[in-house]
Amino acid sequence: MSYRRINRIPDDWGTAVNVQQMVFGNRGDTSCSGVAFSRDEITGEATPSGDFLPNAQGEDVVSGVRTPRDLHDMRKSMPEAYGVLMEILRTLERHYRDMQDTEFTVEDGRLYMLQTRNAKRPAQAAVRFAVDAVSEGLLDKRAAIATIDAGRLDALLHPTFARDAEFDVLAEGVAASPGAAKGAIVFTADAAVAAAEDGRKVILVRPFTEADDVAGFHSAEGILTSEGGKASHAALVARGMGKPCVSGAAALEIDVAAKEVRVGDTRLREGDLIALDGTAGLVTTDDVPLQDPEVSEHFETVLAWADELRILGVRSNADTPEDARKARQFGAEGIGLCRTEHMFMAADRQPRMRAMIMAESEEDRRRALDELLPLQQQDFQGLFEEMRGLPVTIRLLDPPLHEFLPSAEEVAGELERARIEQSDDLDELERTLERVHALAETNPMLGTRGVRLGVLHPEIYEMQVRAMVRAAESVGEAPRLEIMIPLVAYEKELELMRGFVERVVEEEVKGLEVAVGTMVELPRACFVADRIAGVADFFSFGTNDLTQTALGFSRDDVEGKFLARYLETRIVDRSPFETIDKPGVGWLVRLAAWTGREAKPGLGLGICGEHGGDPESIAFFHMAGLDYVSCSPYRVPIARVAAAQAAAGDQ
Amino acid sequence: MSYRRINRIPDDWGTAVNVQQMVFGNRGDTSCSGVAFSRDEITGEATPSGDFLPNAQGEDVVSGVRTPRDLHDMRKSMPEAYGVLMEILRTLERHYRDMQDTEFTVEDGRLYMLQTRNAKRPAQAAVRFAVDAVSEGLLDKRAAIATIDAGRLDALLHPTFARDAEFDVLAEGVAASPGAAKGAIVFTADAAVAAAEDGRKVILVRPFTEADDVAGFHSAEGILTSEGGKASHAALVARGMGKPCVSGAAALEIDVAAKEVRVGDTRLREGDLIALDGTAGLVTTDDVPLQDPEVSEHFETVLAWADELRILGVRSNADTPEDARKARQFGAEGIGLCRTEHMFMAADRQPRMRAMIMAESEEDRRRALDELLPLQQQDFQGLFEEMRGLPVTIRLLDPPLHEFLPSAEEVAGELERARIEQSDDLDELERTLERVHALAETNPMLGTRGVRLGVLHPEIYEMQVRAMVRAAESVGEAPRLEIMIPLVAYEKELELMRGFVERVVEEEVKGLEVAVGTMVELPRACFVADRIAGVADFFSFGTNDLTQTALGFSRDDVEGKFLARYLETRIVDRSPFETIDKPGVGWLVRLAAWTGREAKPGLGLGICGEHGGDPESIAFFHMAGLDYVSCSPYRVPIARVAAAQAAAGDQ
Repeated sequence: MSYRRINRIPDDWGTAVNVQQMVFGNRGDTSCSGVAFSRDEITGEATPSGDFLPNAQGEDVVSGVRTPRDLHDMRKSMPEAYGVLMEILRTLERHYRDMQDTEFTVEDGRLYMLQTRNAKRPAQAAVRFAVDAVSEGLLDKRAAIATIDAGRLDALLHPTFARDAEFDVLAEGVAASPGAAKGAIVFTADAAVAAAEDGRKVILVRPFTEADDVAGFHSAEGILTSEGGKASHAALVARGMGKPCVSGAAALEIDVAAKEVRVGDTRLREGDLIALDGTAGLVTTDDVPLQDPEVSEHFETVLAWADELRILGVRSNADTPEDARKARQFGAEGIGLCRTEHMFMAADRQPRMRAMIMAESEEDRRRALDELLPLQQQDFQGLFEEMRGLPVTIRLLDPPLHEFLPSAEEVAGELERARIEQSDDLDELERTLERVHALAETNPMLGTRGVRLGVLHPEIYEMQVRAMVRAAESVGEAPRLEIMIPLVAYEKELELMRGFVERVVEEEVKGLEVAVGTMVELPRACFVADRIAGVADFFSFGTNDLTQTALGFSRDDVEGKFLARYLETRIVDRSPFETIDKPGVGWLVRLAAWTGREAKPGLGLGICGEHGGDPESIAFFHMAGLDYVSCSPYRVPIARVAAAQAAAGDQ
Repeated sequence: MSYRRINRIPDDWGTAVNVQQMVFGNRGDTSCSGVAFSRDEITGEATPSGDFLPNAQGEDVVSGVRTPRDLHDMRKSMPEAYGVLMEILRTLERHYRDMQDTEFTVEDGRLYMLQTRNAKRPAQAAVRFAVDAVSEGLLDKRAAIATIDAGRLDALLHPTFARDAEFDVLAEGVAASPGAAKGAIVFTADAAVAAAEDGRKVILVRPFTEADDVAGFHSAEGILTSEGGKASHAALVARGMGKPCVSGAAALEIDVAAKEVRVGDTRLREGDLIALDGTAGLVTTDDVPLQDPEVSEHFETVLAWADELRILGVRSNADTPEDARKARQFGAEGIGLCRTEHMFMAADRQPRMRAMIMAESEEDRRRALDELLPLQQQDFQGLFEEMRGLPVTIRLLDPPLHEFLPSAEEVAGELERARIEQSDDLDELERTLERVHALAETNPMLGTRGVRLGVLHPEIYEMQVRAMVRAAESVGEAPRLEIMIPLVAYEKELELMRGFVERVVEEEVKGLEVAVGTMVELPRACFVADRIAGVADFFSFGTNDLTQTALGFSRDDVEGKFLARYLETRIVDRSPFETIDKPGVGWLVRLAAWTGREAKPGLGLGICGEHGGDPESIAFFHMAGLDYVSCSPYRVPIARVAAAQAAAGDQ
């Protein structure tokens, strides 16, 4: 791994060193230029001067024109300069209280320092440095943790391509979810499920993914799409599951109908091997060896310190027992968001869910719900067993019902064919299309979903509440149930649903205590947070939807359509779905947190959007006074470290 | 017209009157019960007692079981009691300073007053009372205007069913846009356009309407839909144009393909007569005579007083010269919103607009834009001629481009057919479907529209700016041009577009002054209003979209899907698209108005959402310190009166 960067000279470096002079001058065995790191893990590189062009000695190192040699070689060839360099590096490290990335030049045996700065470093080195710095007395725990770039710790938690692997890049895409994976190409969720049942490892390859592809995510090693960015459906779901994903690999022409991927002259078919690195956004057809993550003792030490220092709690978003187990292993203190709809996406649930939606009478709907109840109960049981004694926040059904049906376009095409061929399916297809039309919405994100479903079809929420209470009762040491009503804008919505939920709970188990709260994810809710707090035990900020509404950015549309241009023109510095937009979304969070808690001092406050795993956003939530962040299992260690850094920042 | 209501006894009526006693007692020629109004325009009704059941004398009047007689009859039969009643009515009117709606009973010749309250009255009577009250010295102008229910003035500005007309109601729907209309049924915009060209009067009848039906709105007398409520596309566009509309007449089964409307056993076909009353939400197949609105001298007097009293300016939303003329007639002081996209919907523009969108190179796109430029210039010229000397705010293209293309479902069906029939259109259809897919968005309201289009395709905005500057130059006395950039969330968006617009203006006419501002319609924009104000000459609040985003309510989806249930369960009292949601949307408006003007004291502040024509919302905008409201032409007189009432409320 080589570090080649053009660095500016720090302002505080002063004028003691004349850079021009360093780079000119004589050549010979007693001259070289290089980059040195103040720690052994990264040895740095030096390039002995030879036939250099004038003025280029330093630049050649930086630009990578010369192949540099390991710094250890310098010890042999220029022991004196090397010794001085090492001494200076130690001094610099003590001064800056961080590992240094330094450029230097040696001319006629004399060492000149060109510049220094805090070193960017891979996660493993960062963790190692923090532990060493404390044991050497260079830094205290607080300061040591502050030197870690928490966002990079991800790399320690996923398999990677073997460090020395050489491979040809077939396509580059967005590094949508970290980790590396390889397997045979499949084009549909069904094929992925079938392959997993046969024990075959596959990569799910699609132009883009939708809700009904999620079953395939569980079965695949990784996900590869040709469309969409870091906030695409594929990216979000993959990150949530900790599955490696490369999205928006635009060079790939993915023809699902023909079961073929075309890249220039290359044609790949179902079953062909493909490998992807979701940390770097690379795709290859080479059989690259994978390397398991090394969760070192050092890392455990750092995490233990983080837990001592942090004030923010860290929970995890988890929909399945596997997620919950992983989350607990990574140190989650509860589940901050269990999305119950993912339970309806599984292959054995979908037909029942569709029957429920297609039901023409309440009786038919209740019958379909009765069949779903034991399945959902079973899902909850698995989850609760993993989370004994810890709080578990369960969100009642949130997405619009049409997400569980095929698309109008799909049905219309089938229908046209059925008409021409006078098929027997005609009636059924017409009925389906009618229902799809009736449920269709222009802007489903702002349509009939969340609490609005609960108000319209309380029988769905009723089934869910019964399932979770029965599941909690059947587990020895029950978790602390927190029932969350999504998308509340009016206090009356929550009041109605709270009354309803409490009645159902009481019917199931007399006197059982459950907390009832809401997901705060609409700007209006933030403005009337004091009123909503009157009927809520807790708020959990849904910063994904709050970002969508406050900015008018549909997550599904924005990344693919114009975010790239917005980054290019510097309208935004970063996707607001990665790091919270402080002036807009951030203010809404603060407003709701403050006024909500003013109205009810004991109000629980958490955040369960994607931002819960982003260090910069975590620092913001710490300042806003929230109780905890909840993020995907694989980001829990990151959140623990980031929360500690945020707390350290208060000092 | 009869007034039958069960009124509660006002608290301040005291115990002087024993109501039970009034309603019991003897019957005979010297007894009656009735409702009296304190003004001649509404004479009131009295029911002589006869074979009444005990305890029912008053209730029978109120419930309408008895057919009451005109109060003038009482003058003859009980002149004494009548005289006393009239005297009491005058006293009550002086006391309450408003016209009274009073219940009384006469028993054995003795008059008992049962209750009184300020009278609900039709618009005409209200206007008449206000003028009389001032000329009689009962009230001053301020107080007289306060007695008018501004929202009802609408009725004075549209044709109605003749007052005495009898007709059978075929269906009831939502009173979506006031006024009555009748004509032959047509099912498509094209048929409406063709009929209008032949001079035939038609009603456009559709299950629901979409952007590409708008051409048909202009040609039809009225619009009738079976789906959607008061905020449906049909309702909004019709109200904007002042066309009568009944929406959501659910009893109608409208089969566009079969060109048939079914209601029970009745079948109506294209060309059959239909009449609708958009003020009452009624549909009939009877040939009801229509009655023209009577814009009385009294009304003119009231409007003149309103203009003296009000502080808020009143502008109109207008997209065509016809709208602008109507708006100016009704007293608009400028155009607050000209939606340029409506210009692209006209039949002769759509193919060119589609060519622009389907263009595969910038060159092709510019060619298509070059063809659109003179058409758009011509549209602006017509508008500017009507608005000489007044401010005209023109919004650059706002809706997502796919709105100008057919739906994916439509194309998919055609494509399937073309495939089976091996048609020649196959390639073209495939290309179209591909483009439709590429432009498709999950939530178009939150997608690639507004300023985002300007950032992605500046050539579209360029064409529009050139067209408007050239049009302004060609009109003798040019209007004051205000160019409005929609959907801004980041100050940088406006900064970029402002620079771009100013360059184009400068290229066309050196030194021409135009104001550049933005539509404030996203919550984020309100939070960073101070920064945005730094690069804006004015803000115009787009409260429609601000309501959609702040509440997470997609206008197109909410009314049809769950608003009825929300009203039923009292979650909301009124549609937030009719009257501004003060706690949420209202706060955002205040926040942006205050911080925006703090950053730039001379910042212009207006509002151009539907709320600009709603009296309660107008009172709010007055308090928030805005400069003007802008509403559809037909609501301008309402806004003038409401603004005066708001100003009077300050006293």
